[in-house]
Amino acid sequence: MSDKTEKEELDYSDLVVQSDLADYSPVKGCMVIKPYGYKIWELIQKELDSRIKEAGYDNAYFPMLIPESFLKKEEDHVEGFAPECAVVTHAGGDKLEEPLVLRPTSETIIYSMYSKWIKSWRDLPYGINQWANVIRWEKRTRLFLRTTEFLWQEGHTAHATAEEADQVAIQMLHVYNDFMTKALALAPVIGQKSESEKFAGAVRTYSLEVLLRDGKILQAGTSHYLGDNFAKAFDIQYQNKDNKLQHVHLTSWGVSTRLIGAIIMGHRDDIGLVLPPNIAPYQIVIVPIYKKNKDEDKKTVMNYCDSLFSELKAQGIRVNVDDREQFSPGYKYNEWEQKGVPVRVHIGLRDIENNVVEIARRDTREKTQDIPQEGLTDRLVNLLIEIQDSLYQRQLSWQQENTFTVNSLEEANEKLNSGNSGFVKFYWDENPEYEKPLKDKAKATMRVASFDDKNNTGSCIFSGKENSPSYYAGRAY
Amino acid sequence: MSDKTEKEELDYSDLVVQSDLADYSPVKGCMVIKPYGYKIWELIQKELDSRIKEAGYDNAYFPMLIPESFLKKEEDHVEGFAPECAVVTHAGGDKLEEPLVLRPTSETIIYSMYSKWIKSWRDLPYGINQWANVIRWEKRTRLFLRTTEFLWQEGHTAHATAEEADQVAIQMLHVYNDFMTKALALAPVIGQKSESEKFAGAVRTYSLEVLLRDGKILQAGTSHYLGDNFAKAFDIQYQNKDNKLQHVHLTSWGVSTRLIGAIIMGHRDDIGLVLPPNIAPYQIVIVPIYKKNKDEDKKTVMNYCDSLFSELKAQGIRVNVDDREQFSPGYKYNEWEQKGVPVRVHIGLRDIENNVVEIARRDTREKTQDIPQEGLTDRLVNLLIEIQDSLYQRQLSWQQENTFTVNSLEEANEKLNSGNSGFVKFYWDENPEYEKPLKDKAKATMRVASFDDKNNTGSCIFSGKENSPSYYAGRAY
Repeated sequence: MSDKTEKEELDYSDLVVQSDLADYSPVKGCMVIKPYGYKIWELIQKELDSRIKEAGYDNAYFPMLIPESFLKKEEDHVEGFAPECAVVTHAGGDKLEEPLVLRPTSETIIYSMYSKWIKSWRDLPYGINQWANVIRWEKRTRLFLRTTEFLWQEGHTAHATAEEADQVAIQMLHVYNDFMTKALALAPVIGQKSESEKFAGAVRTYSLEVLLRDGKILQAGTSHYLGDNFAKAFDIQYQNKDNKLQHVHLTSWGVSTRLIGAIIMGHRDDIGLVLPPNIAPYQIVIVPIYKKNKDEDKKTVMNYCDSLFSELKAQGIRVNVDDREQFSPGYKYNEWEQKGVPVRVHIGLRDIENNVVEIARRDTREKTQDIPQEGLTDRLVNLLIEIQDSLYQRQLSWQQENTFTVNSLEEANEKLNSGNSGFVKFYWDENPEYEKPLKDKAKATMRVASFDDKNNTGSCIFSGKENSPSYYAGRAY
Repeated sequence: MSDKTEKEELDYSDLVVQSDLADYSPVKGCMVIKPYGYKIWELIQKELDSRIKEAGYDNAYFPMLIPESFLKKEEDHVEGFAPECAVVTHAGGDKLEEPLVLRPTSETIIYSMYSKWIKSWRDLPYGINQWANVIRWEKRTRLFLRTTEFLWQEGHTAHATAEEADQVAIQMLHVYNDFMTKALALAPVIGQKSESEKFAGAVRTYSLEVLLRDGKILQAGTSHYLGDNFAKAFDIQYQNKDNKLQHVHLTSWGVSTRLIGAIIMGHRDDIGLVLPPNIAPYQIVIVPIYKKNKDEDKKTVMNYCDSLFSELKAQGIRVNVDDREQFSPGYKYNEWEQKGVPVRVHIGLRDIENNVVEIARRDTREKTQDIPQEGLTDRLVNLLIEIQDSLYQRQLSWQQENTFTVNSLEEANEKLNSGNSGFVKFYWDENPEYEKPLKDKAKATMRVASFDDKNNTGSCIFSGKENSPSYYAGRAY
C-alpha cells in the first residue's frame, strides 16, 4: 500500500490493521480483507442485495478478462480507464493473440452480451447486477478507500427511452441513499457530478458524497446515465413496436468495499471504530467477570452468560461471549471498544446475586450499572435501534454543521483551511475553467450539485453569472 | 468454449444455453453465468456457507494477483499449475518488475499471510474460507464443467499436528458429502485419490466422485491434507508450549461452479433439466389458464393465483406466477419442464369452480387433476420434500446399479464399453504403472479408494498382488 505521509492517514491505516479489519498483502496496492472486515462486507451485501433484487435486478456473472479491443470501442471510456488497466499478455505458456484486460469495470463485456440478448421491445427494460472483483492500477492506495483490487457490485440496465434510463439511474441513487442512511447510518449529500468529474463514457453521473470525521469527503457510490454511447459502440438494438431498430439507453451503478472505509471514517472516534449496529459483526459482546481459580464462581457467571447469549441469538442478535481465559476483563473492554462493538454487557458475581448487569454503550461510552436482568433482552434490542438512530443523527448534524455557504474563492479557501474543512457550498456557472483555481487555491474539487438545491440558483462566485446552480465542493479522498 | 465433437456434449451444452443457465462469452473458455444459473449458485453458496461457518471457518478475501515467485516456492505445486496460469506482465502503462499470476488456487498467497499471522500454539487451529473467482487456462472447456474462469470456495486450515490436519481434511469431505446428498440430491462416492491423481503439493487428496446420467464420472469436490510442504515453503511456524518453533500442518478444500454441471448431468432427462427443490430458483411455478379477451375469467383465475402465491411465499417457498400474456399454457409447461422446475400448479376457470387445481411433477412427469384447494400449501410443501428425497434415491440407485466389480482389465473394458459405462471396481496394488493400460485400453482413470471399502482388500487385477485396496475407476469429465 501507499506511503503514509499525513497524520490522519497513519491513524486511519493503523486503526484498520489493529482492529483486524484488513492487512497489507505482499502484492502492491492489494489488501487482504480479514474475517472481521469481511463480515461487514457480507452484511453490506445482504442488505444491499435484497434492495437491488427488490428493484428488479437479479445477479449474474460475466468474465473478468476483457479483450483489449472491447475497451477501445467507446472513446471516452478507454481514455478514462486505459491508464489504470492491468493486462494479461501470456497464458497457458503462450503469448496471447490479443491481450486481455482485467476488468476495471464491466460495461464493455456486459454490453457485448446485451447486444446478443436484447432483440425486441418485449425484452425491455432489461437489467442485471453483478458482485465481483475489479482491478484498477492505482498509484496511491489506502486500505479500503483506494486499493488496486476491490470488491463491488455493478448494475447495468437497458431501456427503450432516454427518460426511463435517466429515471432509473436516479432511482438507484435513491436505493443507495436509503441503504446508506438506514444500514450504514451515513448522511450522504446526493446529486449530479460536474462534467469533468463524471464517469468515463457517461452522459450524466449521479453520486453520493459522505463527509467523514476528518472533514474530507468520500465518493461513496455512483450511478450513471450512459445515453446510447455504449449501445452504439456495442450495437445493442431492439425492434420497437413499429418494427424499427432502435439503440437502447443504458445505466450503470456501483458501490464497493470502499463503503467499509466510509463506515470507519464516518463514525470513528479517538479510541477506534464505532460500528452501526446494523452492520456490526458483533452487535453485543458479553464479558464474564470472575476471579481466576474460583471454579464455582466461574460456573455461576458463565451459566448466566450462556443463557443470555441464547436468548439474544434467538432474537437474531449477533452476539459473542468473550470467554478467553488469558485476558482480563479490562483488556477485553479495550479490545471491543477499539473494534467498535456497539454494546457490551459486563457480568460479575455481585451482579448475579443482585439480578443485574452492567451495560456499556460504544457510541457515547456511557456505562450503566445495575440494569435489571428482567426484560434485559428487550432492553438490549431497543438499545441497538437507539444507537443506530443516534449514529445517523450525529452524522447528519456533522454534515450540516460542517457545510458552509461561501461567496468567494477566498472564503472557500478560508473555510476549508479552518479546522475540519468540511463542505463549502456556492453558486457556480459550471464553466470547467473555474475548477482549476478551486483545486490550486483551496485543494478542493466540485463534489456534486445536490438534488435538494434544484431550485436554488444565484450568482457564480467565479464569474458573477446569474442563475448559476448551487454546488457542494470539498477536499476529497 | 470448446469444439463440440461427441453427441452427449452437444446435448449438454445446448441444454445449458437453452435453459438459460449460461451463455458463451467472447472470451475463449470463459462463460457468462446468467441469472437463472447464478441463482442456483447463490442457493449453493447459502447452503454451503452456513455449513462451513458451522465447522468454524469464517470468510475472508485475498488478492487475486499472485507474484510469480510465490507459485514457485512449492516444487510440486508450480509443476502442476504453471502450465495453466494466465500472467499479467503490464499494468498502469508500465511493464511490471515481477509478473503477476491470476490465482489458479490461493495456497501460496494465503499461506504467505498465515506466516505473518500464526505465531503461537494459542493461534491454532486456524482456518479461513474464501469465495472467489479463479483462472486456469484450460485447452478443452465445457460450460460449468470446465471453464477458464470459474467461481469457487477454498478453505485453508492450519494445525499443530499432522493427525489433526488429516482429520479436518476428512471432516470437510464429509461436510461436502452431507451438503451434496441433502441439498443437491447427489450420491457421490467418497474416498482417497491415487498418488498420480492428487493435488499438486498435497500429501493426500480426498475426493467426491459423482456418477452422472451419461455414465461418466465427475470429480465434484476435493479436500487435501498438505502436510508441512507449504508451511516449510512459506515459513509458517508457531511456538509450541515448550517454546520451540514448529511448522504447521495445512489443509485446503474446495468446490466450484462445476457443481452446477453435476446437478444438470446428475438429474437431467431427455426433456431437460430436473432440479432438486432445495436449490431450484423456482420450486413451484403457477400457470393460470384463461381464454384471451375474457377479462372477467382472467380476473377470477388471477385472484386465486395471487393468493396461492402469497401463501406459498409466506411458507418460504420460491414461487413464480407465470402471467405472461404472449404465451399459451402449453408453451409455458414446456418451458418450465425444460428449465427443471420441480412442481407446476395449473389453474383454469373450471378448477376455480370446483375448488381444485392440477399439479404436475417434473421428476416423474405425472400430472394429477382435481387436487383440492383446501390444504394445498401443506400438500405442496410436502411434495417438494418428497421430490427432493426421491431424486436422491434415484441417484443412489443409479450409482449402485452402474457400479460393476471386475476381475480383469478386459472385463473393465467390456463393462465400460457397454451402455452407460459407469463405475468399475477392482483391487489394485497402487502401482502407478497400471494406470496407463487402464487409460489406453478402457479410456478410464482411477477415481478413488472409497472410505466404505477401507477393510476390503483382495488380489490386484493387474499384478495379482494380495491385500490390494479396492478402487473405483471410470471415464471422467
